[in-house]
Formats: sequence, structure tokens, C-alpha cells
Amino acid sequence: MSGIDDLPVRDELRGKSPYGAPQLDVPVRLNTNENPYPLPEPLVERIAERVRAAARDLNRYPDRDAVELRTRLARYLTDTSGHRVGLANVWAANGSNEVLQQLLQTFGGPGRTAIGFEPSYSMHALISRGTGTGWISGPRNDDFTIDLAAAEKAIAEHRPDVVFVTTPNNPTGNAVPGDTVLALYEAAQAAKPSMVVVDEAYVEFSHGDSLLPLIEGRPHLVVSRTMSKAFGAAGLRLGYLAAHPAVVDAVQLVRLPYHLSAVTQATALAALEHTDTLLKYVDQLKAERDRLVRELLALGYEVTASDANFVQFGRFADARTAWRQILDRGVLVRDNGVPGWLRVTAGTPEENDAFLDAVRDVKKEQSA
Amino acid sequence: MSGIDDLPVRDELRGKSPYGAPQLDVPVRLNTNENPYPLPEPLVERIAERVRAAARDLNRYPDRDAVELRTRLARYLTDTSGHRVGLANVWAANGSNEVLQQLLQTFGGPGRTAIGFEPSYSMHALISRGTGTGWISGPRNDDFTIDLAAAEKAIAEHRPDVVFVTTPNNPTGNAVPGDTVLALYEAAQAAKPSMVVVDEAYVEFSHGDSLLPLIEGRPHLVVSRTMSKAFGAAGLRLGYLAAHPAVVDAVQLVRLPYHLSAVTQATALAALEHTDTLLKYVDQLKAERDRLVRELLALGYEVTASDANFVQFGRFADARTAWRQILDRGVLVRDNGVPGWLRVTAGTPEENDAFLDAVRDVKKEQSA
Repeated sequence: MSGIDDLPVRDELRGKSPYGAPQLDVPVRLNTNENPYPLPEPLVERIAERVRAAARDLNRYPDRDAVELRTRLARYLTDTSGHRVGLANVWAANGSNEVLQQLLQTFGGPGRTAIGFEPSYSMHALISRGTGTGWISGPRNDDFTIDLAAAEKAIAEHRPDVVFVTTPNNPTGNAVPGDTVLALYEAAQAAKPSMVVVDEAYVEFSHGDSLLPLIEGRPHLVVSRTMSKAFGAAGLRLGYLAAHPAVVDAVQLVRLPYHLSAVTQATALAALEHTDTLLKYVDQLKAERDRLVRELLALGYEVTASDANFVQFGRFADARTAWRQILDRGVLVRDNGVPGWLRVTAGTPEENDAFLDAVRDVKKEQSA
Repeated sequence: MSGIDDLPVRDELRGKSPYGAPQLDVPVRLNTNENPYPLPEPLVERIAERVRAAARDLNRYPDRDAVELRTRLARYLTDTSGHRVGLANVWAANGSNEVLQQLLQTFGGPGRTAIGFEPSYSMHALISRGTGTGWISGPRNDDFTIDLAAAEKAIAEHRPDVVFVTTPNNPTGNAVPGDTVLALYEAAQAAKPSMVVVDEAYVEFSHGDSLLPLIEGRPHLVVSRTMSKAFGAAGLRLGYLAAHPAVVDAVQLVRLPYHLSAVTQATALAALEHTDTLLKYVDQLKAERDRLVRELLALGYEVTASDANFVQFGRFADARTAWRQILDRGVLVRDNGVPGWLRVTAGTPEENDAFLDAVRDVKKEQSA
């Protein structure tokens, strides 16, 4: 008896590795799209205060329906999108990954399929497989926009039960126009009807608006969100969705009871009290993101138009080698496996300077 | 468009209701096996302190492998069981429900089956179904002990991939002897081989010892635990398992990345610092549990021998009516659907007195 292969694990798990970016001890880490700004100290104190109160009741199960948190998330969505949503439209879980897993357990699963347009957030495929949902890799154009005609054809042909649209897309950074999402929704309804999940994890960094208002009158459309990026709370693991109330009812059939701890709920509520401050950091990061785009272009790199807190840049004859060359200069970026391209997260101005110095240096070496 | 039935949910979810005990506003709630003792104030302060520190780094993803927490859980298991386990033997997730879900995603799933001996913890069947694992309801004797011959026969006949053994069993309260678990393990290995999951959520309340030492030399045996009961931390949602390191490696193939938040890890670590104090509450609850058994017997009720922090009592011609009669007296107990029986959680001495007054009154009314 030595390892996994001696255990009766499912066949499709054999030879697989756990998902996750390499966690390396490097001075400048711009590889996981984290927000570089620590929470402001008044918010840290407020979290401690709210968690202290929650801890006094920790022997009891948490609010299974997270009513206060969902109400407050609904208010945030209403305030920032101009589209009114309420408690009944919102559901929350441990990271948007768990939200997506619950959606796939409800609307995907064995004998069903999901489609995404790749390259995109790789967890869509992984969670699909993890829930027994067949995965269909849909196409994109060479510039990483969605090829609408090809996407509509793929939907008509495969009749997937779940359609993922990531906007802004990860790892490429580009937003998907609302018209494209609407066309995909119509195609999905004509084919099955199926659920369309619009993954807006990075939408606060976008030049444009959230597609949240599209849920109105479209009961099969779900918008997923996270507090990991815009709220600077990757460590909190708080994802949520907005949709027709029937969708919220439906995922409760598969959610583990009491899935969201009292400390998670308390911490998220504290962060939501500080939305205005946190969104100012978002503004700074958008400006830095735009600067990264400009400077990378000036250095002669190709860049994918970005509406996220990261930038896809290239092209490299060998992205893996370039990744290593940048790492050798003390900066960790991400090789997402898109041939010829790498992804850099917008950090603090100082971190971005260090990154730009590194890629300038790499460019020189490659030209030499 | 009105509700779930208009959505393309999976067929097996149609007409189902979300799992969960009724949450009623009643003076004495003894229905969900919560620990009635709030965390001591020094621990509350320590949680606030540790979470404050974690919040300063909340913009970063949490430790994906929860190394400090798993190390500390391993030390707790070693100290309390006398059997040495380390980091590599331990895995943690958001409640034992998520631990069990990960085990079923790894070793169960579509085309595979799991067996439990019912009545038992109903989430075993629900999470099996939620992961596409076929569920087999195994038998018990009339006194709620496991009928070993019948269980071995069921295992040989169905060749399940996962065998659940809950000890102490919920909702009946009785512990399963180590010899029985060993015999079931042998039967499961002969049949398939399959994984045996020993759910010890309530083991700290047992008169006997944990079966943790059985993992030695048995790579297909997993012991699952929780901090919800003995640690008085139902609101924390921290479950864990101990097993051969290969099992820990295997579940990492299906765990959602960064599933365990930094605040959850910080809170659990604080609680583990106060183990000695918390286990003193366990001693009080064991004494109260034994008192409940004695007094229920004295009142003329039947009682299932309990090694947990709850007691199954009966028999009632109609358990639902009895449940309501007790509720009418301000005490909420649990009707787990075991015909003729109800379950009461051991609360504080005052809560238990209120419960005993209520059932004494009900008994009188029924005799009148």
C-alpha cells in the first residue's frame, strides 16, 4: 500500500493532480488575481467585533438561510447595478466555486452536460467533472472573443443543460457584450431549455456594466459573483449568485445544510459595511490595470483588452520558458496553459513596476 | 413561471424539500444536538484575536492545505486516542458533511453505491444521492444495534463502494463495538474492496474509546469527526477525517480549491487551544445524558442506550403527536422519523429539567 493508485478511487480521478496555482515564495506574487490591498484597519476591527459577537453563539448552528447576509448582498447588487434585487434573488456559499458546484448538482450531474467557451475559468470544467456533468469545450475566436455563430451551433448541436459565460473572461480578461450573452441565452432556450450561468467574478473591474439586469424575465439566467476580488477578501471564500427566486429555491435542494459558517457570515457582513472604501481600491486597480496594458503594449507585447484586475499578454514562442524567465526576476505570474500567453494580476504600483522591469528585461534578453 | 417545477432541475430533485430540522422559536430547543454551553469568554476573545490577525491578510487566498490546522487536529486526535496520527493523516472541510461529500465524490459517484444501516445519520443517504451515488439501506436489529450477519450478507450481495458506520449512531445513540466495525471492514474488503467510513461525530460523549486506532494498517478505513458537538462549535462548520495518507491525497483531487476560509481556520485553531476547557463541558453533558436516561426510564419510557449527547426515547403509538405535545410545553425535541421514537439532546441541567417536566406531563395526559 503506497498511494492513491492502491485505493478504489473513481477511474476518472486516476493520474490526476489537485487543482491549484503553484504557491511559491517569491517577492512579487501576481499569479492568482488577488487584490493587493489589505483590508483597511477599521474594517479589520469591525470583523473582529462581529466575529466576537458570533463566537458567543458559536455552539449553535448558523443561520441556515443566511438571511441577513443575503439581504445585504442584494442591497449591494441593487446599489451598484441599478437593478433591484432582494433576499429571494440571492444565494451565497463558500466561494463562487461552491455556488457553481451547487448549480451543477441541481441543473447538471450524471447524464447531463455543460458547455464553456475556452480558454475560460478552468474550474467550470473541473466542477462539471466533479459533479458527473459531461463537459463540452466550446470555441473562441483567435482574439479570445466568443465566436457567436460557432457558439450557437455548438449549443444547438450538443443541447447542453448548463452554459457558462465568463465576463470579464478569465484568463483572457475581455468582457462579453450583453448582446452576445442574450443571443447565447436564446440559443440555449431554443435547444433545451438550459440554464445560462454568467460568471461575473471580476465585473467590478470592468469598463462596462454588470449584466445583472438580464435576470429580469429570464428565469434560466444566473449571475454568479464573489467577494474574493473587488472586496479584497479571497481568504473569506464568499461567493454568491443572483437569479429568479425559483433558482434560489432549487439550489437549496442540494446545498449541504448549514454550509455557511457563522464566522463567514459575520466577516462578510462586516466587509459589506465598508463597500465604499473597498470600491475605491477597485478604482486604483482599474487605473493600474490600464497602465499595465499601456506599458506592455509600449514594450512591444501583445495584450488582450482587459476588463478584469489582470492582463493577458504575449505572445511567446514558449510561454513556459517566459514564465520561468519572469520568475527568475522575482515576479510570479500565471501560465494558464493558453499557448503563447501569460497572465499578470494588477498589483500595487510598486509590484506592477517590478513586473514591468522584469518583462522589459526578458524582452531585451529575447532580442539579444 | 412560478417555481422550481418550471426549471430544468434534475428529475430526482423534483418534489423534494431542503434538508433541515424545523427552526422554531421555542424556549427550550433540544432538537439539533447542539452543545448548550456557549464558548468560554477567554476563548471568544482568542477567536477575535486570531480572526483579527487573519483579517489583515484576508485579501490573500487562505492556506489551501490548512497545514497548521490539520497539524493541530492531528495532535488532538493523538492526545485523546493514544494513537499517533500526523498532518498527513488528517483532512478538514466545512463541516463533516463536506468531508463526507468529498469522500463520496472520490470513492462513490455515478455507477457506484454506498450502504448505511438505518436508521442512521440521514445525510449519508442525502449526500450519496447528491453525488450521484446509489444508496442502499442496510438493516438493523429491533434494538437498533447492527445485525452483523444481515449486514455482512447485504455487503456481500450489493458489493457497495462505500460503507457507512455511525458510532455512536444518530439518532439512536448507541455505539457500535469495535469488533463489529472490524467484521464489516473485512466483509467490505472481501466484497469489493470498498471504503469504510466510521462517522464518529459524537464519539467524545461515548463511554468507550474512539475507533481511530483501527486506521493503522487499514488504508480503506476512514474516521470522520466534527468540532460541532464536543467543541461546542456548530456555528463554525469544521469537520475532519483521519485515515491513511493516500486517502488524504485522494480527496484533494475533488476538494474545491481554497475550500476552507482563513477565518474558519483561525477560529478552529483558537478553539483547539482551549480543548481542555471544552472537554470539561463534555463531561458535564455526559453526566446529564446519563441522568436523562435514568429519569426517562423511571418515568416508564423506553430508552436506547446512549453514548452520544442525546437520548432516543419512546415508545409512542404516534411519535408525531408526542412531539407536538412536548412542543406545546415549550420544549422542542426531534422527530427523526423512527416510528415510535423521539430524540432529545442533552442540554443544560435547567433545560433537561424542563424537558423532563414536559414528558412527565405528557405521560400523565396519556395515562389519564
